[in-house]
Amino acid sequence: MKKSVASLMLWACGMSAFAQQALGPGTGIISPEINADNTVTFRYVNPKAVTVELSGDFLPAQKVEVPGRGVMEVQGKASLVEKDGVWTFTTANPLPGELYSYYFTVDGKRQLDPSNVFMNRDIATWTNIFTMSAKEGDAGHYYMNNNVPHGTLTKIWYDSENAGFDRRLTVYLPAGYEKSKEKYPVLYLLHGSGGDENAWSELGRTAQIMDNLIAEGKAKPMIVVMPNGVVRNPSAPEVNEVNMFQPTMTNSRDQDTKPMEDEFPCIKKFVESTFRVKTGQYNTAIAGLSMGGRHSFSISRRYPGTIGYVGMFSGAGSGPDNEKELAALFAAKPKLYWIGVGSADGVKVSASALRDYCNEKGYPCEYYESDGGHIWKNWRVYLTIFAQKLWK
Amino acid sequence: MKKSVASLMLWACGMSAFAQQALGPGTGIISPEINADNTVTFRYVNPKAVTVELSGDFLPAQKVEVPGRGVMEVQGKASLVEKDGVWTFTTANPLPGELYSYYFTVDGKRQLDPSNVFMNRDIATWTNIFTMSAKEGDAGHYYMNNNVPHGTLTKIWYDSENAGFDRRLTVYLPAGYEKSKEKYPVLYLLHGSGGDENAWSELGRTAQIMDNLIAEGKAKPMIVVMPNGVVRNPSAPEVNEVNMFQPTMTNSRDQDTKPMEDEFPCIKKFVESTFRVKTGQYNTAIAGLSMGGRHSFSISRRYPGTIGYVGMFSGAGSGPDNEKELAALFAAKPKLYWIGVGSADGVKVSASALRDYCNEKGYPCEYYESDGGHIWKNWRVYLTIFAQKLWK
Repeated sequence: MKKSVASLMLWACGMSAFAQQALGPGTGIISPEINADNTVTFRYVNPKAVTVELSGDFLPAQKVEVPGRGVMEVQGKASLVEKDGVWTFTTANPLPGELYSYYFTVDGKRQLDPSNVFMNRDIATWTNIFTMSAKEGDAGHYYMNNNVPHGTLTKIWYDSENAGFDRRLTVYLPAGYEKSKEKYPVLYLLHGSGGDENAWSELGRTAQIMDNLIAEGKAKPMIVVMPNGVVRNPSAPEVNEVNMFQPTMTNSRDQDTKPMEDEFPCIKKFVESTFRVKTGQYNTAIAGLSMGGRHSFSISRRYPGTIGYVGMFSGAGSGPDNEKELAALFAAKPKLYWIGVGSADGVKVSASALRDYCNEKGYPCEYYESDGGHIWKNWRVYLTIFAQKLWK
Repeated sequence: MKKSVASLMLWACGMSAFAQQALGPGTGIISPEINADNTVTFRYVNPKAVTVELSGDFLPAQKVEVPGRGVMEVQGKASLVEKDGVWTFTTANPLPGELYSYYFTVDGKRQLDPSNVFMNRDIATWTNIFTMSAKEGDAGHYYMNNNVPHGTLTKIWYDSENAGFDRRLTVYLPAGYEKSKEKYPVLYLLHGSGGDENAWSELGRTAQIMDNLIAEGKAKPMIVVMPNGVVRNPSAPEVNEVNMFQPTMTNSRDQDTKPMEDEFPCIKKFVESTFRVKTGQYNTAIAGLSMGGRHSFSISRRYPGTIGYVGMFSGAGSGPDNEKELAALFAAKPKLYWIGVGSADGVKVSASALRDYCNEKGYPCEYYESDGGHIWKNWRVYLTIFAQKLWK
């Protein structure tokens, strides 16, 4: 009887009518494949295609002439070569440990890799990803799910008096939170234009970075709160009450910083009354990327003496426009005022202007310049650096 | 100064080199579009394509001849029609409220809808989804993020003494859990072959179903625990310590029920020591789909007197093979022994055989037969029905 039930189950799984379940082993090929020498091979099956290209942030950048702007660097591309219907490309060199993203272009149309289930959504676009940990200390090492104690990732709703409706937060609780009676300091971590409360945990790998830094003793255990920074939106699209809400740059950003400044006390109040939190200036940090960097700038100067650590990743505000407020903020002695930006980022001008203003005024300020532009690859690195500087 | 910072930000966002951020408003067309009369229009831009087909669980099923098996019903397909490079299809009739899934086939290759950010992964395959709530009481009504209090969805790791490593759980906590001091009964909800601890919350819409049923007073507030039912796997692929772990039917199932029977006490112990839980037989329920239905069958008969409510969705065990254990289980008087199956599901034979066995022995057993086969559409409905029968 048991055997016949098992075979019936198999029959049902394999042949069921209307199967919403995707069945079978996928495409049956491996792509991407990380080779023994840390080169990576990509494969795509399509005997009918005429051209298959790969775009990826691991390929050498290409220079293109942009009318009115001169020569600019854009993401590298490579052509796949076909044999027996399978298109293949292998990187020329081993890749360093990182989180990489890529997609195919098949006969001119963007196409995800059907052999790779790992994808990230950024605004309205999905892109395949893969993670490499070539050696300890590489950026990629911190983005992997290593064999270390894991924190909890929670999606929780708070009743925002400011917004007038319930809004969703992502909260990282460090490993052991549930069983301990300890209180923890809190980092508020804000996304950029086009993002939502999922951005930092998915594109930003916050849970993996924090798990690894804490396990290796490089960061102190902390709670990380990742709110939705567009106050008129309750949440990310897949749990938005407006059905079929399609994210765009326009509907997922707020050029004005005031709504998030007004919202921040509601978020903080909810977090401090819901989780076991150490309160006070030197147990409270804020950081954000791009629009979230400007939010961090404006929230910290709006509420001087309440936030001890401020991180602005590829986004900041202006000193001269906020002279009085910045004087009050620095009079309250924040322990860290940290600016990170890429050398190829258009925001570098304003970020370095804020650094110069702080230096001129004698406000302690740390400035970190990486390679590259306005990209997640940098923001993950900035978080990894910034988190190690907290509560010390 | 502020203005120039803003324009620099825009420049950086729009033109940055190596942008990993997907920028801009996506494809600029709307697909799917739910029309005023509840028909639905699909659009796909590709001037070069020769044929574009739509496969969806809302299209009339098609009958095909399967060698050796006779005529079978398979998911319906429709052809899109091209005008000015835009391929279009509108359903002939309004669609009832439901969660629907679909994909395109472009010149013979499966393709996701680039205009729709909403997707679900099932095993290794991603499929676009959309939700309709045509009228109150429709199945789709329960799958929407309606304006009701929302529970919390948590991804938490437990140290499994049985498995010898940390494993991840998805836990739904009802709205108000964090602020109340109440204890709640627990439903353990198990996935099928190919699934993981994300399956019930993503494909199964557990949080939406529970939020809506509880808000409307149709179900009592409860905690829902969704473990990973393949004990040798620590977690879903995206947080698996084995890098680039690609899910397949084979590596994401366990034909033998014993590993999950052995694991269940570890899960229950962790849940009862971590969350505010009402314990005892009549505060404990178990249910599952397909393989998870067999797990629910075997776990409930292995630990008689500890589980008061049992749900087997499109998957069950055999009475005759478990005669003694079932006698012990029913001697301990479970309040609900519920079997749900589709009329077109191959598992119907074994499900109705278990019902007949229970009837013959005088064991109280509820049997529910829906239309359709071995599909998520049915499992969401079974959960909606089953949850309303608990703790009463």
